[in-house]
Amino acid sequence: MMKKATLLFLIVSLSILPAMSPATAATKKEAVDAVVIASFGTSYPEALKAILTIDKEMRKEFPKAEIKHAFTSNIIRGIWHDRADDAAWKKANPGVPGWLYDVKGPLATFGALQEEGKKRVVVQTTHVYAGEEYLDLKAYVDAIAGIDTLRAKWKPFSYMTLGRPALGKAGLHPEYRNDIEAAAKTMAADVKKAKKMGAVLVYMGHGNEVFPTSAYIEFQKTMNSMYPEVTTLVGTVEGYPGLDDVTTALKHIKTKKVFMKPFMVVAGDHARNDMAGDEDDAWKTVIEKMRIKVTCELKGLGENPEWAKLYAEHAVDAVTVHTGK
Amino acid sequence: MMKKATLLFLIVSLSILPAMSPATAATKKEAVDAVVIASFGTSYPEALKAILTIDKEMRKEFPKAEIKHAFTSNIIRGIWHDRADDAAWKKANPGVPGWLYDVKGPLATFGALQEEGKKRVVVQTTHVYAGEEYLDLKAYVDAIAGIDTLRAKWKPFSYMTLGRPALGKAGLHPEYRNDIEAAAKTMAADVKKAKKMGAVLVYMGHGNEVFPTSAYIEFQKTMNSMYPEVTTLVGTVEGYPGLDDVTTALKHIKTKKVFMKPFMVVAGDHARNDMAGDEDDAWKTVIEKMRIKVTCELKGLGENPEWAKLYAEHAVDAVTVHTGK
Amino acid sequence: MMKKATLLFLIVSLSILPAMSPATAATKKEAVDAVVIASFGTSYPEALKAILTIDKEMRKEFPKAEIKHAFTSNIIRGIWHDRADDAAWKKANPGVPGWLYDVKGPLATFGALQEEGKKRVVVQTTHVYAGEEYLDLKAYVDAIAGIDTLRAKWKPFSYMTLGRPALGKAGLHPEYRNDIEAAAKTMAADVKKAKKMGAVLVYMGHGNEVFPTSAYIEFQKTMNSMYPEVTTLVGTVEGYPGLDDVTTALKHIKTKKVFMKPFMVVAGDHARNDMAGDEDDAWKTVIEKMRIKVTCELKGLGENPEWAKLYAEHAVDAVTVHTGK
Amino acid sequence: MMKKATLLFLIVSLSILPAMSPATAATKKEAVDAVVIASFGTSYPEALKAILTIDKEMRKEFPKAEIKHAFTSNIIRGIWHDRADDAAWKKANPGVPGWLYDVKGPLATFGALQEEGKKRVVVQTTHVYAGEEYLDLKAYVDAIAGIDTLRAKWKPFSYMTLGRPALGKAGLHPEYRNDIEAAAKTMAADVKKAKKMGAVLVYMGHGNEVFPTSAYIEFQKTMNSMYPEVTTLVGTVEGYPGLDDVTTALKHIKTKKVFMKPFMVVAGDHARNDMAGDEDDAWKTVIEKMRIKVTCELKGLGENPEWAKLYAEHAVDAVTVHTGK
Repeated sequence: MMKKATLLFLIVSLSILPAMSPATAATKKEAVDAVVIASFGTSYPEALKAILTIDKEMRKEFPKAEIKHAFTSNIIRGIWHDRADDAAWKKANPGVPGWLYDVKGPLATFGALQEEGKKRVVVQTTHVYAGEEYLDLKAYVDAIAGIDTLRAKWKPFSYMTLGRPALGKAGLHPEYRNDIEAAAKTMAADVKKAKKMGAVLVYMGHGNEVFPTSAYIEFQKTMNSMYPEVTTLVGTVEGYPGLDDVTTALKHIKTKKVFMKPFMVVAGDHARNDMAGDEDDAWKTVIEKMRIKVTCELKGLGENPEWAKLYAEHAVDAVTVHTGK
Repeated sequence: MMKKATLLFLIVSLSILPAMSPATAATKKEAVDAVVIASFGTSYPEALKAILTIDKEMRKEFPKAEIKHAFTSNIIRGIWHDRADDAAWKKANPGVPGWLYDVKGPLATFGALQEEGKKRVVVQTTHVYAGEEYLDLKAYVDAIAGIDTLRAKWKPFSYMTLGRPALGKAGLHPEYRNDIEAAAKTMAADVKKAKKMGAVLVYMGHGNEVFPTSAYIEFQKTMNSMYPEVTTLVGTVEGYPGLDDVTTALKHIKTKKVFMKPFMVVAGDHARNDMAGDEDDAWKTVIEKMRIKVTCELKGLGENPEWAKLYAEHAVDAVTVHTGK
Repeated sequence: MMKKATLLFLIVSLSILPAMSPATAATKKEAVDAVVIASFGTSYPEALKAILTIDKEMRKEFPKAEIKHAFTSNIIRGIWHDRADDAAWKKANPGVPGWLYDVKGPLATFGALQEEGKKRVVVQTTHVYAGEEYLDLKAYVDAIAGIDTLRAKWKPFSYMTLGRPALGKAGLHPEYRNDIEAAAKTMAADVKKAKKMGAVLVYMGHGNEVFPTSAYIEFQKTMNSMYPEVTTLVGTVEGYPGLDDVTTALKHIKTKKVFMKPFMVVAGDHARNDMAGDEDDAWKTVIEKMRIKVTCELKGLGENPEWAKLYAEHAVDAVTVHTGK
Repeated sequence: MMKKATLLFLIVSLSILPAMSPATAATKKEAVDAVVIASFGTSYPEALKAILTIDKEMRKEFPKAEIKHAFTSNIIRGIWHDRADDAAWKKANPGVPGWLYDVKGPLATFGALQEEGKKRVVVQTTHVYAGEEYLDLKAYVDAIAGIDTLRAKWKPFSYMTLGRPALGKAGLHPEYRNDIEAAAKTMAADVKKAKKMGAVLVYMGHGNEVFPTSAYIEFQKTMNSMYPEVTTLVGTVEGYPGLDDVTTALKHIKTKKVFMKPFMVVAGDHARNDMAGDEDDAWKTVIEKMRIKVTCELKGLGENPEWAKLYAEHAVDAVTVHTGK
């Protein structure tokens, strides 16, 4: 197993994070009229818990603001809209909040906020890292935020700003390594469970083919530095590192047990089928064929209140940075 | 009275307008999913006729598209939303189309179209000329049209384009002088009435303080060239040419009669109060003090089907130019 | 002749111009590293006086900055570059400043300033009004000013800003009417000469076909308000108002004398040929055929130190507005 | 040592690269008027070979175009400009091409090209991967390419396009993994040398703190898949993976020999001092303290004609993609 190092370095490096006067940040937060929590969405009622946990953490940070949800997936919005007219489904799923049956995409959500006269808006992505979907959302937010009318009062919003993903984004401030560090800190419970099992901890992320995904591999490195008691491996459905990287490492480590979880905000299709399914190419099946015992936990990252809180903190940062200019 | 000239030149110059194959233009028009008619809006039920006439002409050009209306005035949208809950008002105004009670601004209208899956959208302003409000609307449309997602299919619309105002806009194609010419052609009935009265024809436009408003003065010149039988004067509420220019000219001409109309798409507040009102600074009062008899007609430009048709034609042009690239 | 009016109104309206503390403006001016005076250019040595007068006024306002000239015309730059190798021409034209033989376009001039390490740059157009050439120049300046590197220190310039044309530009601040007013004030000497001659004062501007040119017609109105002792008419080579508008007015006024000057920054080809030439379609010829005596003065606007000073003041304004943000 | 895999997959995946008709690509290449090779620059005469090799490969692809060099480093340009006046230095370094003494930054180089009337321009970065410096250069190129004059003929260039770094860039086409694959193919000679030595091959890249640098770690993975006979490790001066990742792996592998090269286009300061220097924190020193024998080769990537050819190919791709739209 690889040696773990540099924990001290990481702790020290955290001490140079910019210190914001809590009073000032609080004042800025209070001026926010609305927060839009933008997710890909999920059609699984049992997976909603992740989004609702983020909702709860966000309300703690922005108690006076209107909290709205936008789903970027047209298909998933369509499923919820269909359920709006399905009395049987609704009766069978009594805990589902009403807003889901009328959930909109980002553009219509922004339009609705303008109609309501909300002027100061922060949008918070629930993406894990800054990949294609985050950049597409950013394109929407930047476009609306950049509308420049002759007189400032006719702009759709006095400001609209976007909170970064859990694992951060490229740029000078804040450094994405600090975000990776903060994210790893929220995973202690997973490490504890894996240690108890004597298992390697494997996370299945989404990834993508078109953007560099070093956030995953740096997250893996940070986990192994922070929690030397357990080996953590991260793979992605699309792109690097892949399942092949995970299995290569597992062979090398010669472990007999794996504790596997989705490294996605909700435990939806990918978690249920690609990770824990019974198909030949499901990760569980592939790893079990290596004579390794696999225990899966179908909980999205957002179900962890500490992880959910990262998004709320990033929303606060976005407001602070924006209005502090 | 000023001499009139150059009619021949104008007729000849029109013959060089680009000829578009009707078949091609028709094909492109048929692909449009939705047309958004964007107006400042009006709270006067009797002034709605202008917008409904534009709606009718637009439906003739785009029989298969969804036609939506957006009002840019927050105050006027608010008035209609209040009326939605006012049963007495609704009973007293039975002819008002239902969409008015839920009319939205451009951003929310665009959002609603995306939710409906409309992909090819043309927005048509009902502004008279390219001033502040048109440029603000353009800022909204350009922002939405410019959203550039990684994969084209995730853009909010496959295209969104904006039709120019009645009197055109700056730029190479089409020349705004051709639009002014086409607009003047639709005013023959006004000239006829003025001639019958032996009156000078006075139009009150809106204008503005911050953008050059030569469209008005060039429209005046074109009217006088096209209809030498009547003197036409154009003034604006804000900016150049003003009421002082109109009264200076009226003194010079020594006329005894004026036929006055709003040169605005709807006959709303400005027409009813600033133009035809009884206050000391109403144009009617000011001109009557010059011992000139003033006859006002409270009809918005949009009530003239030929003028309304200009907007429908500009929407078609916007589609043709856009999709022809 | 048209009545003149509203002089009082104009004087009063000027009193609401924003007052800038001279100390602050001075401090900002002193921080400017370089001023680029951007002209179309001229190949006539005798017309250079206009540009050199602007140069002189600019140096008074920015004594510590480097003053550079850029010519936007490829053809005119080519003529000067050819002369660089023409010893005979140079000997015959001893007064020509050396920089002309190496004059560059805006882009190469900006590049040269970056190489020299100049960080704070103001570009001042010498255009009369905000037409096509000004907007093209603005496209260049906006592009360079908008280059957004990750770290601010790698931007080509810490700021680059553009001074508006003599007759102003659309927008809230400053109102272009104030600029027209200030421009008209510099023309007293022309009015005096015309009055002495008993002549109508006719200016030939450049104009264009594609942008509204109401700056010219509003300038004409302002001249007639400010100097009621003489009738001023403005026509343009391209666009509205045209020579036809001038001749229509001259017929109406029944004058016997015209004092005609170019309303262009340099007295180049248009002034020498289109205005004062002997061809049948030269303005002088056309007006003389109306049995009107025409006296031409071949001096560009820039040769008038008061007009030249307008550009220097606009450069200062651009810096003040920019750095005051 | 990690197992090597998936070579077959990679070979297969390469077969789906888009096939461009050579004839078409050739036609497009011939239309290019100028190529700007944009480097950070180097002051070491002996390191110039890298840039001159790229120059040579570029001329093979664009025999009819003007080839210009731009250096982005202000300091390095200053060093060369000082040498221009240093006769002794020039005499001692007779092989240095003359253009170096007058080398300019990108903006001044673009300006010079416009003065020369070059209309179709491709800019080719010599960066290894798409980090801060590439994105800064892209900001310059995008700004110039985006200048939108009213008439297309007044744009500075009819087109200006930018070739991607050696290891590619994020986006759909081409996939950066194909670029990493192609880059790894050019390293066979290094692998051969390392194998002969029985050494681990270590590359020192530049990296950065602010952009995800997975290109390096994916390059490492690709090297190990493509050349299973030798272990390749990649570290960076700034960011992930760092020297600590290299030393952790070296300890784990228990090798006795390292063959170390800069993974930078030129072998400049970093290679001579940070990598192969005698200071305590030089990589050579650090690794030697692990009782590992280190052999350094001070050759920049650009000195390898196959690597240099990657840039020429990327320039061709940029033209083909651009003009193929």
